[in-house]
Amino acid sequence: MTMMKRVKPKEVFMGRLSHGGDLLEEISNMCLKENIQLGWMEALGAVKKARLAFYDQDKHEYQFFVIDKPLEITKLAGNVSLKDGHPFIHAHITLADRAGNAYGGHLAPGTVIFACEFRLEVFDGPGIKREYDEATGLPLWTMPE
Amino acid sequence: MTMMKRVKPKEVFMGRLSHGGDLLEEISNMCLKENIQLGWMEALGAVKKARLAFYDQDKHEYQFFVIDKPLEITKLAGNVSLKDGHPFIHAHITLADRAGNAYGGHLAPGTVIFACEFRLEVFDGPGIKREYDEATGLPLWTMPE
Amino acid sequence: MTMMKRVKPKEVFMGRLSHGGDLLEEISNMCLKENIQLGWMEALGAVKKARLAFYDQDKHEYQFFVIDKPLEITKLAGNVSLKDGHPFIHAHITLADRAGNAYGGHLAPGTVIFACEFRLEVFDGPGIKREYDEATGLPLWTMPE
Repeated sequence: MTMMKRVKPKEVFMGRLSHGGDLLEEISNMCLKENIQLGWMEALGAVKKARLAFYDQDKHEYQFFVIDKPLEITKLAGNVSLKDGHPFIHAHITLADRAGNAYGGHLAPGTVIFACEFRLEVFDGPGIKREYDEATGLPLWTMPE
Repeated sequence: MTMMKRVKPKEVFMGRLSHGGDLLEEISNMCLKENIQLGWMEALGAVKKARLAFYDQDKHEYQFFVIDKPLEITKLAGNVSLKDGHPFIHAHITLADRAGNAYGGHLAPGTVIFACEFRLEVFDGPGIKREYDEATGLPLWTMPE
Repeated sequence: MTMMKRVKPKEVFMGRLSHGGDLLEEISNMCLKENIQLGWMEALGAVKKARLAFYDQDKHEYQFFVIDKPLEITKLAGNVSLKDGHPFIHAHITLADRAGNAYGGHLAPGTVIFACEFRLEVFDGPGIKREYDEATGLPLWTMPE
């Protein structure tokens, strides 16, 4: 079922992430520090290496892989919502190498920031919760229809 | 000529699309149901298979192709405007396979949703209309310069 | 160090860029004309050819390359901030060819627009300045922590 919820824009941040840090961890820490529970993020930049995941839709498990070279981030898109009561980042990333070839996947821990500039939009009010979804095996958003 | 129009933010939705549905159709139906005439959408997720198009800039026609395997949506970007008086979705998508290789194109009917989380921003006021543009052969936005 | 700044949304534009124009130049000119000093842009469309760059993280220099064929823009993401006192566009782009294969990189002058539809969000107040960053060799944002 398609489900959507009207959210209330609260504030917008622009910023950049720490050189040498772990991309997913830096975003998580930033959201924890600012107590952000519901948000949407867009970013661009570069990484020293990437660790991504592909979700196996039959086995219902993530398969992780590393691209061990410098890459441009042509796009990072992610959201913040609540999982088990805590802010949780879900982000996908598109990357490109020296020859211009593009790669992508689900952002996993182990991706090292070279530089990253972002726009983070924060929403007010009750957060959106993730709960186990049987059809996909994923923690998906639950919301009134 | 570069043309732009100041638009008036009305509301923002976050939500997820129906597992197993047609990606383009689900977005269209959602906009019809909510009577959205002008909007901008960003999304991420996964598809069971993709049907995309590449616009042949010389022949002025879309060439359709299918990528018949599960893929991550590393980015979906689209907008809502008016074509022939009805809300019309124009979306491009970036995808990645199990090995992390990226693909992309103009989103066509026939792309099957595995999971998809979106931010949809809706604008107030008179919509933006698409009209036939001779130079490209495409229905492009018309607006006061 | 991760740094972020609360920015004040001022206005949102939707528009399309001039067929045949230089993609980076058209965006720059638009921002100069509208006196936009701080902004975030998302776009999709197509180009006649692309000129991109990959930043060599060791040599601290951009390496430029051309993809000399028509491509879909599956995503363009960029921001506007101040460099040497003037509005400066930093944009990354993801592209796809006739076969659906994706490419990407840092947008450089020499990319020719076929069609491009954008959302440009403008922020009020003091701009964000770029200054030379020793660790990366790049002009990065400076902002209060």
